[in-house]
Amino acid sequence: MNVYECVRSLSSVRSYLDGEVLEEVIMEVMESGRFSPSAHNNQPWEFVLIKDRAMLQEMGKYCTSGSFIVQVAFAVVLLVDPQSKWHQIDGTRAAQNMVLVAWSHGLGSCWIGRIEKEELKRYLGVPEEFDVLTVLPFGYFDKRRVATGKLRKTPDEVFHLDGYGKRIPR
Amino acid sequence: MNVYECVRSLSSVRSYLDGEVLEEVIMEVMESGRFSPSAHNNQPWEFVLIKDRAMLQEMGKYCTSGSFIVQVAFAVVLLVDPQSKWHQIDGTRAAQNMVLVAWSHGLGSCWIGRIEKEELKRYLGVPEEFDVLTVLPFGYFDKRRVATGKLRKTPDEVFHLDGYGKRIPR
Repeated sequence: MNVYECVRSLSSVRSYLDGEVLEEVIMEVMESGRFSPSAHNNQPWEFVLIKDRAMLQEMGKYCTSGSFIVQVAFAVVLLVDPQSKWHQIDGTRAAQNMVLVAWSHGLGSCWIGRIEKEELKRYLGVPEEFDVLTVLPFGYFDKRRVATGKLRKTPDEVFHLDGYGKRIPR
Repeated sequence: MNVYECVRSLSSVRSYLDGEVLEEVIMEVMESGRFSPSAHNNQPWEFVLIKDRAMLQEMGKYCTSGSFIVQVAFAVVLLVDPQSKWHQIDGTRAAQNMVLVAWSHGLGSCWIGRIEKEELKRYLGVPEEFDVLTVLPFGYFDKRRVATGKLRKTPDEVFHLDGYGKRIPR
């Protein structure tokens, strides 16, 4: 899958199928986070990979906007260091890398934003100083059940050329 | 270029070569931002494409950490709506999509973070309510002059398995 095709087709997945994921694919997803660029190369992140089924089940309790995490093959808890000024941006760049590489392997994901963060940190033994940026679930899914026609604002609504309010000619 | 290869090789570029970019490539980069997923599909963003040479030159004054913008083929000013709770994360996902698709076409970029935002908004006529998340320059570059060996923390420093502090066995 080429990169534009991947970016263009990426959709959020909230319903998953059973199916083990090859260890080398899981590690490609992890490495895609680790190799991400960051401001001043600070790398203000750590990645907790969750493969244990009972743990994924338990995490359903803490992922308020992502109870579907109980269905997935694995998940990554993305921790960031709020001492780093750019931690949210840097962590998000890493997350997007991971989600795109997973998608290129036929794995769906979905940014889980509403999380009981302090409870989750306690459950996973995460040190106080970290913040949970997101939890990313990963798993196979039924392609027929994912919206392919993306509802987006039109180019004329969001694109400008050489100054705000000037349209890009077609 | 496959997606993992793209993510794995992506490096920041701060020195550019002359060279026009095909209009269809520029539009793929723009569309990669527009099609990005966002929380509740809010799409809290607008994109100002800058191609005019004199404007790129002028913008060098406002891009404190990216004076190299004067060299590039085009740039995108990424505006976000701070009224949207997730604007920074959503805008960053769009930016990462754009940078990766550009990279897959041999175009370098670099997240410009330090910007004289109010001056830049005034120069471009951007309405008060928007925030400038970043300016992304795009252009061809000399591949021999970009660091390919990425200095990153090791997997053992940033990866954990099924709980914080537990190593991933090799």
